Amino acid sequence: MFFASDNWSGAHPAIGEALIREQSGYANAYGTSPLDRKIEARFNEIFEREVAVFFVGTGTAANSLALSSVGRPGGVVFCHKDAHIANDEGGAPEYFTGGGRLATVSGPEGKMTPSELRRIAARYPADFIHHGQPMAVSLTQSTEVGTVYGLDEIDALTAVAKEGGLPVHMDGARFANALVALDTTPAEMTWKRGVDILSFGGTKNGCWCAEAIVFMNPGQAREMPFIRKRAAHLFSKTRFISAQLDAYLTDDLWLNLARHSNAMAERMRIAFRTSAKARLAWETQSNEVFIILPKSAAEAARKAGAQFYDWLTPADQPGLVAEDEVLARCVTSFATTEAEVDRFVSFLEAEPLTKG
Amino acid sequence: MFFASDNWSGAHPAIGEALIREQSGYANAYGTSPLDRKIEARFNEIFEREVAVFFVGTGTAANSLALSSVGRPGGVVFCHKDAHIANDEGGAPEYFTGGGRLATVSGPEGKMTPSELRRIAARYPADFIHHGQPMAVSLTQSTEVGTVYGLDEIDALTAVAKEGGLPVHMDGARFANALVALDTTPAEMTWKRGVDILSFGGTKNGCWCAEAIVFMNPGQAREMPFIRKRAAHLFSKTRFISAQLDAYLTDDLWLNLARHSNAMAERMRIAFRTSAKARLAWETQSNEVFIILPKSAAEAARKAGAQFYDWLTPADQPGLVAEDEVLARCVTSFATTEAEVDRFVSFLEAEPLTKG
Amino acid sequence: MFFASDNWSGAHPAIGEALIREQSGYANAYGTSPLDRKIEARFNEIFEREVAVFFVGTGTAANSLALSSVGRPGGVVFCHKDAHIANDEGGAPEYFTGGGRLATVSGPEGKMTPSELRRIAARYPADFIHHGQPMAVSLTQSTEVGTVYGLDEIDALTAVAKEGGLPVHMDGARFANALVALDTTPAEMTWKRGVDILSFGGTKNGCWCAEAIVFMNPGQAREMPFIRKRAAHLFSKTRFISAQLDAYLTDDLWLNLARHSNAMAERMRIAFRTSAKARLAWETQSNEVFIILPKSAAEAARKAGAQFYDWLTPADQPGLVAEDEVLARCVTSFATTEAEVDRFVSFLEAEPLTKG
Amino acid sequence: MFFASDNWSGAHPAIGEALIREQSGYANAYGTSPLDRKIEARFNEIFEREVAVFFVGTGTAANSLALSSVGRPGGVVFCHKDAHIANDEGGAPEYFTGGGRLATVSGPEGKMTPSELRRIAARYPADFIHHGQPMAVSLTQSTEVGTVYGLDEIDALTAVAKEGGLPVHMDGARFANALVALDTTPAEMTWKRGVDILSFGGTKNGCWCAEAIVFMNPGQAREMPFIRKRAAHLFSKTRFISAQLDAYLTDDLWLNLARHSNAMAERMRIAFRTSAKARLAWETQSNEVFIILPKSAAEAARKAGAQFYDWLTPADQPGLVAEDEVLARCVTSFATTEAEVDRFVSFLEAEPLTKG
Repeated sequence: MFFASDNWSGAHPAIGEALIREQSGYANAYGTSPLDRKIEARFNEIFEREVAVFFVGTGTAANSLALSSVGRPGGVVFCHKDAHIANDEGGAPEYFTGGGRLATVSGPEGKMTPSELRRIAARYPADFIHHGQPMAVSLTQSTEVGTVYGLDEIDALTAVAKEGGLPVHMDGARFANALVALDTTPAEMTWKRGVDILSFGGTKNGCWCAEAIVFMNPGQAREMPFIRKRAAHLFSKTRFISAQLDAYLTDDLWLNLARHSNAMAERMRIAFRTSAKARLAWETQSNEVFIILPKSAAEAARKAGAQFYDWLTPADQPGLVAEDEVLARCVTSFATTEAEVDRFVSFLEAEPLTKG
Repeated sequence: MFFASDNWSGAHPAIGEALIREQSGYANAYGTSPLDRKIEARFNEIFEREVAVFFVGTGTAANSLALSSVGRPGGVVFCHKDAHIANDEGGAPEYFTGGGRLATVSGPEGKMTPSELRRIAARYPADFIHHGQPMAVSLTQSTEVGTVYGLDEIDALTAVAKEGGLPVHMDGARFANALVALDTTPAEMTWKRGVDILSFGGTKNGCWCAEAIVFMNPGQAREMPFIRKRAAHLFSKTRFISAQLDAYLTDDLWLNLARHSNAMAERMRIAFRTSAKARLAWETQSNEVFIILPKSAAEAARKAGAQFYDWLTPADQPGLVAEDEVLARCVTSFATTEAEVDRFVSFLEAEPLTKG
Repeated sequence: MFFASDNWSGAHPAIGEALIREQSGYANAYGTSPLDRKIEARFNEIFEREVAVFFVGTGTAANSLALSSVGRPGGVVFCHKDAHIANDEGGAPEYFTGGGRLATVSGPEGKMTPSELRRIAARYPADFIHHGQPMAVSLTQSTEVGTVYGLDEIDALTAVAKEGGLPVHMDGARFANALVALDTTPAEMTWKRGVDILSFGGTKNGCWCAEAIVFMNPGQAREMPFIRKRAAHLFSKTRFISAQLDAYLTDDLWLNLARHSNAMAERMRIAFRTSAKARLAWETQSNEVFIILPKSAAEAARKAGAQFYDWLTPADQPGLVAEDEVLARCVTSFATTEAEVDRFVSFLEAEPLTKG
Repeated sequence: MFFASDNWSGAHPAIGEALIREQSGYANAYGTSPLDRKIEARFNEIFEREVAVFFVGTGTAANSLALSSVGRPGGVVFCHKDAHIANDEGGAPEYFTGGGRLATVSGPEGKMTPSELRRIAARYPADFIHHGQPMAVSLTQSTEVGTVYGLDEIDALTAVAKEGGLPVHMDGARFANALVALDTTPAEMTWKRGVDILSFGGTKNGCWCAEAIVFMNPGQAREMPFIRKRAAHLFSKTRFISAQLDAYLTDDLWLNLARHSNAMAERMRIAFRTSAKARLAWETQSNEVFIILPKSAAEAARKAGAQFYDWLTPADQPGLVAEDEVLARCVTSFATTEAEVDRFVSFLEAEPLTKG
């Protein structure tokens, strides 16, 4: 019953096998080996255009360096108030953008709305030096609260960005989960919708550490080799990241892992939609499920070995969670089993019904 | 005949096996898993004192973040002019120290001398704001040109640092190679000699990516968790670095790999000490060998598949290399075989003797 | 009718005279002249203790460098959402703190409340690296909306800061205005209340450019000489700033100018408290007055030469300003005359009464 | 006998008068007043083209922000080893360029030679990420050791810069002194020679604090308003800088002050060319004179009130200064009088002739 986070899982066996295959033999260091080149080309296929790809080791590096590449003095990035860059990256985006600011945008269920984005962006007129200058819009897909932007929603947000001449970054730490949830293609979910730079995540979906910064327009990536190097995020044996991505992107492994992960979440959602003991806080579409359950039940589940995080009640839904309840985030992964989900659901169903 | 660099080699099989062992199962993310704790404790044993350890993925990260932790406004780091931080890190040390300067010190065979260090440091009096303020001395052990500081040499340099109240950093990307060359202990080569912070390298010696920043005095590491996080160098699945180090530090694997690597270099040195076709540029003690050979021979060797880097003639030895010669750096690694060394030597011996 | 801002005024004649007196003759550069030393000592008298003083040329420099001196990696500064550092400094505080974040705190009339400060600060637990680490609390005295923290209010906020071990910065761009409004002493309003670092402003109160960063505990200022130099904020002819402050701090000029400025604001407030044409948006205590008036009247006043800024309706008072009204900020200064105030009031009184 | 530095002098009376004129009355803040606009336009006339001008308060700010505007990740600036940015700015250029490096170039008499510049620049190939990427060449005119680049010398250096696609910055802290020494025009000495950005200094030549960053191509200045604001170098009452420049640039005051200053230096040089007691270390063309004199004479002169700085013997002229001699830098300024020069010369001439 490990639902703490998808980065608590290990690595898929195919990833490990790829590492082993790569371990013998010599190859050019610093991302210039034949395998590195092969995987870069693989991204062109996946995105149906020539893209510029930069491998890094952490999602925070992908996000921060991506934003650094569009950084401007006194710059401001617009993102949802729940965004990973705003809450969980220890100031890395601000640091790598030379003191950039994250201007957070509200919106229900972890999604910015175009009107709110426009309202917040209006506080930073393009030529008014005192407030700072707009430099990017960053979307998270899938979001931090398990929801997924529809293609039309992405369109609407990138349109606001383009009005202001702003590049659009997508934090795709859970890109694959969103992709299979929408049953669409990488091209459709990114550049065809106006996304300029993508943080493409593999780590949460079965790799050990494999993230890629993808520039839809290679011309905008000119400084990135130097940005990555200066940030100490260029690995000498980059080919081990490439090896992971090689396995990850072969035979749809990445999509299949995400499908499995999403299916495990859906299995949990189905159970809690009709449960008398716990209820869904909101509907989600990817591999995160948010449930409200009695504090007593949460404690009992933890004692029985269940792992999940307590979540803050959203500011815009103050009455959502009662005093004697908790809001719990449950994350599934490629490694989650049906048995594990069922055990968790059964456990909670067996708990005495408290008032909660 | 792969002597381009030790980071062109892959990973030792024991490292791969450790990764595979760790791939199943759940564990706390961001460096807080039981395995992470175990390896941190292992460092205490190795260094014979309680140290603070921070795992990162690249040697440049280890160096830059170590220096960042002792950063001061307008700060200056003193290092040898051949140091990796001065030549090969794309400005990362300067970046992470907020614009710190690397004031380079000359010295034969890649080593700073105490007198030169004192002379350069004298340009930055402690209270004179205009020039900048001294913030650290950084030694490379083993050096970039294959030599190794003797324990007394380290003593002499750290003494100069301590005169000025400066912390001492050691870039130990090839720490194990130096350690076995001196046949000493980690404690003797570091804190007992006045070294405060160590970049402990595993990558060049058989890991895929495993580096550690080691603070000999944990009290000086207070900000490092935040520094590493802000720099995006905290891995969610840190335990895969720990797994590598687990194998690396078990049953003296790390020392044995370094012994092998050094022995392969010594095998090459022995051959070239008496060769009529190539000669040693200078004596080395670790896994790098610098030879001078006719340009024609170098070209022929490359055509035959040999890989090595041309090296700049040291400024203080202008007549070392003749017009029709090249200075070549040959690096051995854990993966180098005797056959490979012998093939390279034989190949050069068989070349026609040009004037060179 | 110049009420746009107190930095639209020029300089008091005594300031000009001091500059002229200083213009002939030689003196040590970079803040080491006898006059510089004299003014530093003058600050000791004013604050009734030994303080460390650093002269700079802009209020933004004073604030940013003050915060830089307590900067921490991934650091977070807590300040009111209306604070100058959060709205009007073009990202300088974030920049100079290496990517620090300004976590804004709500509170009526431009003042943080202790409970809100505690609530926001709780989002950044001291050892939780992911969110960032708390590094300072910054108060603005007087505030951006013309109010003044009472001494007990300062006590209450610094108490929250001290609970978390945080240093307290006071943005005193309008320090003198607050001081005379409270009829208290510099010591009482700062270190006796727990304020550690003060941005002491002279520019808005009759100097040309004269700001000082004051450390109540000189031991905490150790790095500031280097911070200021690295930021290019050390003037070679610092003595011209000292000359301004010499005049400013002699014979209570600074307090008298602030008293005048506040009195002009009070004259305006008295008029608008009973006006049928415009009303006070809220009561203020220093040299800023916020009035609500019909749009038509505002336009007419501007045509007649009046200058003032439109202000955003506070988010917590959504119904404050009607559709056909504007919220106007009027700032008085040392240069404001009674006639100017009276002319403005009379003009508005003479406007036809619209529904507004 | 004040020859310590030209920034030890005060301000020319015309500068003070301009400040007094500006002190009454209101005007737009932050560099948008009519006077600011007028002075910006004045620069167009002086440079015979439309330029973009940004006023700042210190020469270090001008240099650092100018370099920041052409900053690149991992960037390297090439400058003479004696350059002010390399020796006297406390790390500001490195800081504001995000960790840029100053790669210093040797050359006799404070001047880079094209061949040395090319040799050093060759260490940083444009696409080689490990060493860093070239970002600018910076010349100092007049140089730190009193010499002046001839127009052809500037041509030759900017040609090397252009080969590498690098922008050229000129540190013109003593721009006027060089200009009158060469008897040329601002246009001829800058953009017609390939200079892109100029730090135009007024402070050392009679202003209190008035420096300007001049972009010869306004299109390259797009980010500068934000860079200056983020660096806290935008003054609210910018018009006081403009007022200084208004006086400075009227009726050739700036050129006349520089002519005077240079003439005083020439008066000193003439005396020491034939003196038996002190000799010129090298010929200079602007307002700095370097003399070699017996230690005893230097001490006596200082006791008699003379002020000058000891200078380090240039590394390329090791035998220049005998054991019992000192190398002294004497700087003249707009405020230097003939009497002052003559007194200094006479004093030294009257000293007993020691062996020195």
